[in-house]
Amino acid sequence: MTQTKTLSLSEIEALSFDALVAAGTSQANARPLAVATAATEADGVASHGLAYIPIYCEHVQCGKVDGQAVPTLSKPRPGVVRVDAATGFAHAAIELGFEALIPAARTQGVAALAISNSYNCGVLGYHTYRLAQAGLVGIGFTNAPASIAPSGGSKPVVGTNPFSVAVPGSDGQPALLIDQSASTIAKSEVMKHAREGKPIPVGWALDSAGNPTTDPEIGLKGSMAPSGGYKGVGIALLTEIMAAALTGATLGIHASPFSGTAGGPPKTGQFFIAIDPSVTAGDAFATGIADLVEAIRFQEGAHLPGDGRRGKRLTAREDGVAVNLATLAKIEAILKNN
Amino acid sequence: MTQTKTLSLSEIEALSFDALVAAGTSQANARPLAVATAATEADGVASHGLAYIPIYCEHVQCGKVDGQAVPTLSKPRPGVVRVDAATGFAHAAIELGFEALIPAARTQGVAALAISNSYNCGVLGYHTYRLAQAGLVGIGFTNAPASIAPSGGSKPVVGTNPFSVAVPGSDGQPALLIDQSASTIAKSEVMKHAREGKPIPVGWALDSAGNPTTDPEIGLKGSMAPSGGYKGVGIALLTEIMAAALTGATLGIHASPFSGTAGGPPKTGQFFIAIDPSVTAGDAFATGIADLVEAIRFQEGAHLPGDGRRGKRLTAREDGVAVNLATLAKIEAILKNN
Repeated sequence: MTQTKTLSLSEIEALSFDALVAAGTSQANARPLAVATAATEADGVASHGLAYIPIYCEHVQCGKVDGQAVPTLSKPRPGVVRVDAATGFAHAAIELGFEALIPAARTQGVAALAISNSYNCGVLGYHTYRLAQAGLVGIGFTNAPASIAPSGGSKPVVGTNPFSVAVPGSDGQPALLIDQSASTIAKSEVMKHAREGKPIPVGWALDSAGNPTTDPEIGLKGSMAPSGGYKGVGIALLTEIMAAALTGATLGIHASPFSGTAGGPPKTGQFFIAIDPSVTAGDAFATGIADLVEAIRFQEGAHLPGDGRRGKRLTAREDGVAVNLATLAKIEAILKNN
Repeated sequence: MTQTKTLSLSEIEALSFDALVAAGTSQANARPLAVATAATEADGVASHGLAYIPIYCEHVQCGKVDGQAVPTLSKPRPGVVRVDAATGFAHAAIELGFEALIPAARTQGVAALAISNSYNCGVLGYHTYRLAQAGLVGIGFTNAPASIAPSGGSKPVVGTNPFSVAVPGSDGQPALLIDQSASTIAKSEVMKHAREGKPIPVGWALDSAGNPTTDPEIGLKGSMAPSGGYKGVGIALLTEIMAAALTGATLGIHASPFSGTAGGPPKTGQFFIAIDPSVTAGDAFATGIADLVEAIRFQEGAHLPGDGRRGKRLTAREDGVAVNLATLAKIEAILKNN
């Protein structure tokens, strides 16, 4: 059993902030990442919460991310915001971009944010969630080093490339939040099985010839299986077009790995679209979403995307979150040694 | 073997136009649908080409679509175009909308088109293709009567809801065109198996309790299996949010069927986003797309989405298309009897 300690969300944020700053991150860059880390723990996505803080710190120290980066913004057209993340953390770049994206979406009806020279943005749905909180439908794309092969091929050309959509609700929480990658399973699950020496189920990964494998080590040298075959490749390609080609960021085929310390900054990208539903549909939007949500939430056994995280989020505000003691020990070592 | 006759693309367009007009469609509404029908035959998507003309004509005559409808356009914000299709054909509404969408995308950098009170738009990729021909990245969504159940449930809440993205290329053809539905297989394939009394493979459809079935009749009374399980449901939900909720169109749970003559107009919707890649990424866009396309096209055995249709399209211009004699007989009967 994993040993844990319960921390409040503000304790998680403070710990994340202090560790990032101790490792060499500027306060301006550390704050949005610390806020996101607490929110991610609140949502129950522990894999992308505090557990990532030691990795972020290591990446600042090895130069995979520039902790002191100052992202820059331009607005080439009324509906488009561009941010150069300057090989810094994605969170600071997204924070800067959203300050311009949200008002642009309200005045134009729709606006887009293209971020280049960026880094792993953590849980993508955390960012689209923020657009929904502003009353906008938020769609997000983020690309990653290539690990999925094209249909009929065996050599990776696109990453597990998640997309997310968040829909504003009536209570300040998203009515619906979809956040899914293009692979059958997260690559981190295959890596975990490899570390533990356990076989993986058929359908998770493919060997370097494109055949199914149950050996996680062979799968990691081959490719991740796309969810739903060629249609999963289609989703990964959509995301690559949006997050890499449309931002001028580095394609997954050229990007350095997100894990480990080799290869320098990945310089991947994010793309967000924010739409004001009151402009495109008037009052019909809220009615339509309420009907759709009800048809799912009140169907026996059915899962409404986002409800899991929503429930955990509401509980975490009151009760805090149980965090892994081993992770806490790593973070305390960073604070002590820097 | 199916008996066929080879027609030129202009013959297919003329035949489609004449039949639609004979059935009671205005010339203004018939033209864009006839042009799309010829283009769809050229792309080799015979299921949505001339074979649909008798169905369209029947729908005009039973009132499922208003052949004389005049779609209306409004522009509530600089980046948003709304079109009320007035229960007419989607093609005329999209044609009208694109005339405003394309210049808006160029001046704003990004623009959106929301169409309500609409109908089946045929091959979605035909429309995004046209945005790519205008030098824009075109993303499209269209919703359909509910046939996919939510994850964990068994009652349909969303349609097979396709999305499409088309990317401009350097030769006037899209560099990449993705056009895929959210189900494992098209519903029309299950219907075809039912007509022919053949079993369907496991994984195509589910019975009304949500269990796999090989009986197409039982599958049609149950639900279509989403591609990649809950992730396919996520894609269908994204599309429903965009094409129905964000347009104020009828949700799939409330829409009348696209097939048959009962239930009046489906009043479903379409949503398009057009993005000027020169604004969001400058010259890096063309370089990125060329790299991505090359990584797929030159990988042995790999399929680049859109290449199949592209090849057929280029051949069809010279050689015409072999069309089904039985379909031609139905169309000739419409021309004779109206």
